[in-house]
Amino acid sequence: MPRYKAVVAYDGTNYCGFQSQENGNTVQAEIEKTLKKLNNGQQVTIHGSGRTDSGVHAWGQVIHFDYPERDAEKLRHALDTQSAADIAVRSVEKVAETFHARYEAVEKTYHYHLDIGKPRTPFKRFYAAHYRHPLDLVKMQEAVQYVLGTHDFSAFCSTGTSVENKVRTIYEASVTEIGDNELIFIFRGDGFLYKMVRILVGTLIKIGNGQLEPHDMPKIIASLDRNQAGPTAHPEGLYLMEVKYPSE
Amino acid sequence: MPRYKAVVAYDGTNYCGFQSQENGNTVQAEIEKTLKKLNNGQQVTIHGSGRTDSGVHAWGQVIHFDYPERDAEKLRHALDTQSAADIAVRSVEKVAETFHARYEAVEKTYHYHLDIGKPRTPFKRFYAAHYRHPLDLVKMQEAVQYVLGTHDFSAFCSTGTSVENKVRTIYEASVTEIGDNELIFIFRGDGFLYKMVRILVGTLIKIGNGQLEPHDMPKIIASLDRNQAGPTAHPEGLYLMEVKYPSE
Repeated sequence: MPRYKAVVAYDGTNYCGFQSQENGNTVQAEIEKTLKKLNNGQQVTIHGSGRTDSGVHAWGQVIHFDYPERDAEKLRHALDTQSAADIAVRSVEKVAETFHARYEAVEKTYHYHLDIGKPRTPFKRFYAAHYRHPLDLVKMQEAVQYVLGTHDFSAFCSTGTSVENKVRTIYEASVTEIGDNELIFIFRGDGFLYKMVRILVGTLIKIGNGQLEPHDMPKIIASLDRNQAGPTAHPEGLYLMEVKYPSE
Repeated sequence: MPRYKAVVAYDGTNYCGFQSQENGNTVQAEIEKTLKKLNNGQQVTIHGSGRTDSGVHAWGQVIHFDYPERDAEKLRHALDTQSAADIAVRSVEKVAETFHARYEAVEKTYHYHLDIGKPRTPFKRFYAAHYRHPLDLVKMQEAVQYVLGTHDFSAFCSTGTSVENKVRTIYEASVTEIGDNELIFIFRGDGFLYKMVRILVGTLIKIGNGQLEPHDMPKIIASLDRNQAGPTAHPEGLYLMEVKYPSE
């Protein structure tokens, strides 16, 4: 059976994350339900590039699945229009039968939106995290530079993860103000540990508010100790923007 | 009793508009409920600068109300934190007892967000309208210029309105692309008729998609005929951004 790669966007607000689990509605279960309907009741299993947590959004999550021969654009259209309104299917293409959305991913980009308005902007409440106290953007911009390059990011990994190798390479790391009281954090790298982006943001916020200094960032990275880093920032600000593969 | 002016922002998604009515939850009813709680159970009536429809958002709706003597910032904080999460109170100030949010308003600014991505961006679905077909931005930008100045906007007024004088002056009218497949329409004027902004947007979309031409815009305005204009664009793209008063 041919293998297809699809790029999907979703509003994670009403899902218990991407990956199927025993309890709760997930993006994976929702897409599989639609595929099963399109496939005359035959189950289709999808594989994502990685999980996203409850409340986390995606603009460029990549999945793959095996499905009978079909025109890729027709399949995209059917999957897009028949999925729930909070899921959009941006593209579908036929790929090699050896393609794997997770194992072959070589680069991911995440954005994190932080509403720094006082009070919080009501129509951003599910789409940006809110921070009410003053933040020193220049200090955060200085600190975020230390994230670039190859490091063991154990200090920025949720405890209890089974992943052994915690070395990742970060190609892009920035914090920018994007008008009307909003900050955007951008991280692009060869991979990210569980909750890594949210812990990086939580740590940068502690640098912005003066509880830590920019030069604490390299010390925290070197400590390999989760307790040295800041808290995990809220999920609603996080977006998986893009996943890249060797062929691209 | 002192009179207060407040600037409120709200996500209109879950409300039947701003103004109280017999059926359905409204922003006015929600704010009055909070004020009553703060005022030891005594009813407080608020007056808005104008109504907004179901699904329409506000960043700068202005209200006034009479309330016992209180520090304005403390009142703002209490009202903001005790209101529902989809309502934010941006400012509260004491004003002259003759101030009226509706009768004294001299200028309003509306923004309209249109998602022109294919497919629709899931996390914008309640915060921007979606249009799936190609739009000629240059033609829309040419047409929107005709809206500037003083005109009888009867052609852009929902039928059945009781307002007699349909002459309004528009100071600013523009359509701009703001990255990632989104258009923003901006209208600033001395006042707007019922559904006027949404009918203007619906007409501009018909010019953008080629069903009408830019030079049809002055003819539609001159016709004073609602049937000549385009359809009323969906509510979720509309934001009441600012209301101005003579003192400002």
